[in-house]
Amino acid sequence: MSGAAPRYRQLADDIAGLIRSGALRPGDRLPSVRQTQASRGCSAATVFQAYHLLESRGLVRAAERSGYFVAPAAPPPPAPRERAPQPVAVSEMVFQLLGTGPHEIHAPLGSAFPSPTLFPLDALRRALTAGSRRTSPAELTQQLPGGHSALRRLIALRYLRLGMSIPPDEIVLTDGALEGLNLSLQLLTRPGDTVLIESPGFYAALQALERLGLRAVQVPADPAEGADLDAMAAAIARHAPRACWLMTSFSNPTGSLMPPEKKRALVALLERHGIPLIEDDVYAELPHEGGPPLPAKAYSTRGEVLHAGSFAKTLAPGYRVGWVAAGRYAPALLRAKLSQSLSGSWPAQAAIAHYLEGGDYDRHLRALRRALAEQQRALRTAVLQHFPPGTRVTRPLGGYFVWVELPPGHDSLALHRAALAEGISLAPGPLFSAGGDFRACLRLNGGQPWTPALVRAVTRLGELIRSQSA
Amino acid sequence: MSGAAPRYRQLADDIAGLIRSGALRPGDRLPSVRQTQASRGCSAATVFQAYHLLESRGLVRAAERSGYFVAPAAPPPPAPRERAPQPVAVSEMVFQLLGTGPHEIHAPLGSAFPSPTLFPLDALRRALTAGSRRTSPAELTQQLPGGHSALRRLIALRYLRLGMSIPPDEIVLTDGALEGLNLSLQLLTRPGDTVLIESPGFYAALQALERLGLRAVQVPADPAEGADLDAMAAAIARHAPRACWLMTSFSNPTGSLMPPEKKRALVALLERHGIPLIEDDVYAELPHEGGPPLPAKAYSTRGEVLHAGSFAKTLAPGYRVGWVAAGRYAPALLRAKLSQSLSGSWPAQAAIAHYLEGGDYDRHLRALRRALAEQQRALRTAVLQHFPPGTRVTRPLGGYFVWVELPPGHDSLALHRAALAEGISLAPGPLFSAGGDFRACLRLNGGQPWTPALVRAVTRLGELIRSQSA
Repeated sequence: MSGAAPRYRQLADDIAGLIRSGALRPGDRLPSVRQTQASRGCSAATVFQAYHLLESRGLVRAAERSGYFVAPAAPPPPAPRERAPQPVAVSEMVFQLLGTGPHEIHAPLGSAFPSPTLFPLDALRRALTAGSRRTSPAELTQQLPGGHSALRRLIALRYLRLGMSIPPDEIVLTDGALEGLNLSLQLLTRPGDTVLIESPGFYAALQALERLGLRAVQVPADPAEGADLDAMAAAIARHAPRACWLMTSFSNPTGSLMPPEKKRALVALLERHGIPLIEDDVYAELPHEGGPPLPAKAYSTRGEVLHAGSFAKTLAPGYRVGWVAAGRYAPALLRAKLSQSLSGSWPAQAAIAHYLEGGDYDRHLRALRRALAEQQRALRTAVLQHFPPGTRVTRPLGGYFVWVELPPGHDSLALHRAALAEGISLAPGPLFSAGGDFRACLRLNGGQPWTPALVRAVTRLGELIRSQSA
Repeated sequence: MSGAAPRYRQLADDIAGLIRSGALRPGDRLPSVRQTQASRGCSAATVFQAYHLLESRGLVRAAERSGYFVAPAAPPPPAPRERAPQPVAVSEMVFQLLGTGPHEIHAPLGSAFPSPTLFPLDALRRALTAGSRRTSPAELTQQLPGGHSALRRLIALRYLRLGMSIPPDEIVLTDGALEGLNLSLQLLTRPGDTVLIESPGFYAALQALERLGLRAVQVPADPAEGADLDAMAAAIARHAPRACWLMTSFSNPTGSLMPPEKKRALVALLERHGIPLIEDDVYAELPHEGGPPLPAKAYSTRGEVLHAGSFAKTLAPGYRVGWVAAGRYAPALLRAKLSQSLSGSWPAQAAIAHYLEGGDYDRHLRALRRALAEQQRALRTAVLQHFPPGTRVTRPLGGYFVWVELPPGHDSLALHRAALAEGISLAPGPLFSAGGDFRACLRLNGGQPWTPALVRAVTRLGELIRSQSA
C-alpha cells in the first residue's frame, strides 16, 4: 500500500525506479503486457496505461509488434541525492535481484543466511521430539497468546544476563524477527507517515515501508559506527518522523556496531522527541569476541524501544522463531500478532525452549562466533587481494557480512548480472537505500565455511570488476 | 490502521462502540487512565482527551477522585441498522470478550477450536521427528519461498481429488489461514477502500478490516445457505467494493453451507464486476457426511478467487500451517508473505507433509467428522431442551459450531458476563458484525467431547437466560 496513487502510476514508478537504478538498461525489453498482468495481478489496461506514461516520460519506446524497450537515450542524470521524505519502491528490485532465476548458485555470497551446516541440527531435531513430547494437548490451543511461555521466560533470562530486566509478558514471540518488525511498524504508523531509517540499511525495512505506504527519511550510516546522530537530529526537526527503525549491532549490510555511548545518545534523542525506536538486533549474539553488546534498549527508561531478536541467524534457520520485547507497546503488539496470525508455530517454539534449557546454546554460540570471525576474515582478505586497488572493505566486529566499496565508476548491478550467470551471487548496493544509491558497493556473505571454491569465486569477481574498467 | 483519525478520537470511538453495544453499561467504571495507557500503548494525554470527548458527547461522566463512569442516562437508541459502508471498530470488543480475565473456564463453549484430544497428536509427534530427519540442511535456508514444496504438492493433490487443477506454484503456505487471509486483504486493498463481508461473519475478518483502515459493507447471511446474493448485487452496484471476504462452507459462526449453484452464481456475480473473492474455507474438510463440498473457487475460471485452507482445525492445532491458493494473485501474495515473515516454520510444514504422505489423514478425518457430528447434535439437543421456548438453533451440515438465537429481548452480552463468572465461556452475537447486531444471538462450540459437565453447563446457561427475563 503506497498512498492513493492509481495502480498504473505505481507500476510506472516501479519500472522508472528500475531504469534509474540501472536494473533495466537502455535497449532492455520490458516484460510483455501479459507477463506483467500475471506478475502484478493487475489488468491489461493498467499495464498499457503504465507503459504509455513511461513512453510520455521518454523512458521507454514502443516497437511495432515487438513490445516495449527501455529508451536508448539515457534518462536524465539523477537529481542530487534526495534528502526529503520519499515514498519507497524498492521491493520489485529486491525480488528481481535476489531471485536467482534459472541460475544454479555454487557461491552464495549474496545470501542473507549463514551456512546451515554451522547449526546444531541433530540436537535441534532431538529437541523437536522432546519439546513436543512435553507439550500437553491443552497447550496447543490455550497457551497461544504471546507464544510459548517457557521460551518467553528463557528469553527474559538472557536479557537479565545483560543486566536488562524485561518481564516475559513484554516479550511477544513472532514468526522470525521479520514479522515482529513489520507488525511493530504497522502498529506505530499510518499510511503517509514518515519513518527514519539508515542508509545503507536492511532492504526488508524498505520493503516494509513500501507495503505500508510510508515515506522514508534516510540518514547516513557510518560503516563502522552506524547511523549519524547529527543528521538524525536535523531530520527529526524537519520531518517529525513517527518512528525510527535501525540496526544497532553488526548491522546489515555494513556490519557497523554503534558504540555504547552513541546508543545512549540515540535513545535520549529519540525519547526527547517521543519517537519510538524499532531496534532490529538479530545479529547481537554474533560478536567475534566476547559476549553480545548491550542494545540501545538497555538505555531506555520509558518503554519506547521495541527490541527484535531471533534464533534464525544463531541457532535454527527455517524454524522462524523470533521475538519483540516491545516495552509499553507490548499489549498492542500482542493484539496485532493475534489478529495477523494468532501465534507462532508451537513445535518450533517448544524445541527451542527445550534446547535452551539443555544449556548447550552458549557453547554453540561460542563455536559459531569463532567460525564466523574466521570466515569473515578470510573473505575480507581475499577481497582485498583480488579486487582492484582502491577497493574498501568494512572490518566488522561481529556478524558475517562485509560491505565492499569499489573504486568510483564501478557498477555492482552489472557485476551482479555477470556473476549470477557464472553461479556466484552477491547483494548489490542499490538494494540498501530508497534512492538507488551505492551503485559502486556490494554486500558479501562470510557465513559460508571457507573453501577453495569460494576463493575461486572471489578471484572471479575481481576479474569481472577489472573487466568493467577495461 | 483506521484512516487518519487522531488516537484520542479512535480510543473514544472504541469506547463509544462498547457502550453502544452494551459491553459497557450505565454505571460501569471505565478503566483507569493508567490501565488504558498500558493496554493501548498511548500517552496519558491521549486517554484524557478521549475521556473528555466522551464526556462532551454525554456518554460518560467523571466522578471526583474516583474516575470515569458510563453515564446513567442511556445513550440515544442506535440508529436504524446501518447499511452504508462503515469503518470497523470491533477489535477491542473481541479481545475483551474472548479474553477470560481471571476466570478459569471448565466449559469452553466460546472457544474457536475443537478439543485438541480429537487430533492424532502421537502420530504428529512421530511425523515431526521423521519430517525433520528427512530435511537436508540446505532446505532450511534455500527452499523457503512459498514454503515446503512437497507439502504444496500434497495440497495440490487434494484439490485434484475435488476435480480442481491447482498448480503447486499457485499455493502459498502461510502461518495458519489467518495470515494468508490478512495478507490477501492487504494485497487487494488500500486504506479507505470498501470490502464486502457477510453478517453475521467471522470476527477475524472484521479485525483485519479494522487494522487496514477499510470500510465494511455487510450483506445479510442466511444461517443455512450463507450470504444473500441479491443484497450483494445491490451493494456492489452502490458501493463498488474492492474485494469480498466470505466463508462458503460450514461458516463461522452460523455453520451455513452455500449450495453449489449459489457458489457458482456468487463467483459469476463477482467476476462480472472484477471483484476478487477471499474465500475463507478452513472448515471445508469437516462435513458431517461424505466428502468436502466444492469451494466457490471451483467455479472460477479467471483466477480471481483466493482460497484459504488450514490444518489448524482438522489435524494440527498450534502448528500454524495454512495456505492460500491465490489464483492470479499468487506471485504477488508470495512476495507479500516473503516481506511479512519470509516463510512458515519448517518443522511444522515437514511434519504435516510426512503425515499426509503416510496416508492416515483421510481415516483421521472420517473419525473426526463423526465425532464432531455427534457432539454438535448432542449440543443442539441440549440447547433446545434447556433454553427457553422460542430459542432457535442452526443445524449445520458440517463444522462444530451452532448459532443460537434467543427469544427477543434476551442479551448475549449479559449472559456472557454471568456465564464467565461460573467458568462457562460463549461467543456473544455482537462479535460477529461491524454494528453490534445480534444481541440476542450466541455461538456455541460443539468441538468438545460431550460430557455430563457440558450438559450441566448448557443447563446452567438455560437458567441464566431464564433469569434474564424474570
